[in-house]
Amino acid sequence: MNYSFASRMDNLTASTIREIFKFASDPKVISLAAGSPSSLAFPHEQIQEITTKIFSQSPTLALQYNITEGYAPLREFCLQTMKNENSVNETDDLLITTGAQQAIELFTKALINKGDTILCENPSFLGSINSFKSYEANLVSVNTDNDGVNLVDLELKLSQNPNTKFIYLIPNFSNPSGITTSLLKRKKVYEIACKYNVLILEDNPYGALRFNDLHIPNIKSFDTDGRVAYVGSFSKILSPGIRVGFLLANKSILEKCVICKQCSDVHTPMISQMICHEFVSNYDLNAHIQKLCDIYSKKASLMLSEIDKKFDKRISHTSPNGGLFIWCTLPDHVNMLTFCKKAIEEKVAIVPGNAFLVDENLPCQSFRLNYSTPTDEQIINAIDILSKIDLDALS
Amino acid sequence: MNYSFASRMDNLTASTIREIFKFASDPKVISLAAGSPSSLAFPHEQIQEITTKIFSQSPTLALQYNITEGYAPLREFCLQTMKNENSVNETDDLLITTGAQQAIELFTKALINKGDTILCENPSFLGSINSFKSYEANLVSVNTDNDGVNLVDLELKLSQNPNTKFIYLIPNFSNPSGITTSLLKRKKVYEIACKYNVLILEDNPYGALRFNDLHIPNIKSFDTDGRVAYVGSFSKILSPGIRVGFLLANKSILEKCVICKQCSDVHTPMISQMICHEFVSNYDLNAHIQKLCDIYSKKASLMLSEIDKKFDKRISHTSPNGGLFIWCTLPDHVNMLTFCKKAIEEKVAIVPGNAFLVDENLPCQSFRLNYSTPTDEQIINAIDILSKIDLDALS
Repeated sequence: MNYSFASRMDNLTASTIREIFKFASDPKVISLAAGSPSSLAFPHEQIQEITTKIFSQSPTLALQYNITEGYAPLREFCLQTMKNENSVNETDDLLITTGAQQAIELFTKALINKGDTILCENPSFLGSINSFKSYEANLVSVNTDNDGVNLVDLELKLSQNPNTKFIYLIPNFSNPSGITTSLLKRKKVYEIACKYNVLILEDNPYGALRFNDLHIPNIKSFDTDGRVAYVGSFSKILSPGIRVGFLLANKSILEKCVICKQCSDVHTPMISQMICHEFVSNYDLNAHIQKLCDIYSKKASLMLSEIDKKFDKRISHTSPNGGLFIWCTLPDHVNMLTFCKKAIEEKVAIVPGNAFLVDENLPCQSFRLNYSTPTDEQIINAIDILSKIDLDALS
Repeated sequence: MNYSFASRMDNLTASTIREIFKFASDPKVISLAAGSPSSLAFPHEQIQEITTKIFSQSPTLALQYNITEGYAPLREFCLQTMKNENSVNETDDLLITTGAQQAIELFTKALINKGDTILCENPSFLGSINSFKSYEANLVSVNTDNDGVNLVDLELKLSQNPNTKFIYLIPNFSNPSGITTSLLKRKKVYEIACKYNVLILEDNPYGALRFNDLHIPNIKSFDTDGRVAYVGSFSKILSPGIRVGFLLANKSILEKCVICKQCSDVHTPMISQMICHEFVSNYDLNAHIQKLCDIYSKKASLMLSEIDKKFDKRISHTSPNGGLFIWCTLPDHVNMLTFCKKAIEEKVAIVPGNAFLVDENLPCQSFRLNYSTPTDEQIINAIDILSKIDLDALS
């Protein structure tokens, strides 16, 4: 039979980027296209101990239904962590989600009617953009400087779009740009959100993966009137495959998200939640995170030094203080998609920047590099290969 | 600040039923209100062996990101199981979901525009009804006989609602009614769906929990043109807390659901998927299911015999051949909600039947009893307590 799909699906077509990902699984290809943490860093021996303990001590808890809000001790841990960052209001509550992606989807489902505007950084995280599109939001991008969103453009877009529901931001080591929003801009963004009476969705999957001591407070820490919802994740600090994240927001928002989650997956798998809770309770999370930061910091430094040594000086790039990504921008005369295709022909997979725009048909000169998954040797070889692509032949 | 939620949330208000559930957690209350399998039946020792094996042999697979479609060996097992039931077309594909609830949500998200009609059995599963409401479907209920939906009413509702997208059915031991749709009616429902050119969503979480040898083919097994989508679940045969289900449907539907799942939780937690696959590969699933059937069959028989012995003969009830539920109907002059409130005062929790209507404000004389979670002694005591409620005092 012929099917007639929901109109929301029209916004979610398969993209040209998938064509490049097809080649990324070729074992001869060096992939700088991933968004994953390094598999080398998973604490699998500890998690094996944890699962043994869970099934010897609390098998029924791990295997039976539980409440939608999440496993109470894990919720308490996440709440306490956020309290330690001065990021919890008395009227806030916290929901455990099946990965941070689900937190973003539930928040969107609870708030967005077709045509409501969401402001995103340009560029922004593909998974969130698609979640927003799946509820037929009007996506408007805000220009980004090296210290976060451009405030003039943010106010312009807010005044042009009086039906804006929320501003979506990844203030720490953003995916894909690697950019960190400055303290000043975090405060200003909050002030502007107050002025225009819109919400902020603060997404912080990478915040713990910081390469220096310069901790910048969450936007949520300035929140005095339930305006900021905060998304956290265990994917980058423990494991993405277990799919555990959380949403911290005002109770009246959170209870709507709980209802949406009941309709979606009832609750996050208990074994995943219990693994997280046992790990943070009985192992040294901070030491584990420090180990991850050391690994990623070294890999980032290596990639950046290779780029500085070998890339054509007309290619600009960000210099992340944490996270997983570097964002490179080609000179105007070079066709970016042709550059990415040339790279894959030479067996290096990179992600074309237009994947991270609210409309991937908009002009884009950038591409994203990941340094967390390749080996040091692969980083050196891949940057060497990319540096040998003749920019002037790709007009 | 004041929040303005999406209009879809207007359909999803907290219900009066929650008031009764509040009391169900009181340890003095005997709960016949659950929808859970018996915790006694979880194969926790085997699952402990499995997780030890997973983390010693394949820790990275368990902890890293994987593809949205699901863990390939588990998909293959589910597909083969469905092939053995003659329920897979060449153009079908299968998606692993975070519980059957997610399969229902993704299918709905991919297909339903606001106002599109979905036909449901009356009564039907609350979780699915809420998922449908969350996409602002027009829900229309079809009268149910003791052998499944009333075909005359089904045709009437289809002709009255030319914008019907699909018919939602739980043909085996339905939740809440315990009713099984006869073979004849399954064939007729498929014929009628063809005649009116609508899809069928066949939800089968309880099918394996059969108390006799009378296997009735899936509606999906009659499907020659990609009209039937089938939802399966590991919740009732292995564990609900691990949250693993699947959706089997035509490829063009399935690829839309995959896109929706990417936006929702990226993929189902790998550890949950791997536990399912290891269990079905290395342990005797059929023997385990037989053990469950023996437990539930005995409990169902006990509850039914106690009902027949003690209940006022004016209370009618279904006699399930499988699953977890008995559906009781009070005589017309009795106020059903008052009966349920009286029951909870007497420390027995039951679920008012209006919870399972497309509009819980519609008149309803029924309530649902669960026999899988109470002990034998609790079943005897609870039925005794319910039988002593004076019906004629509850007009």
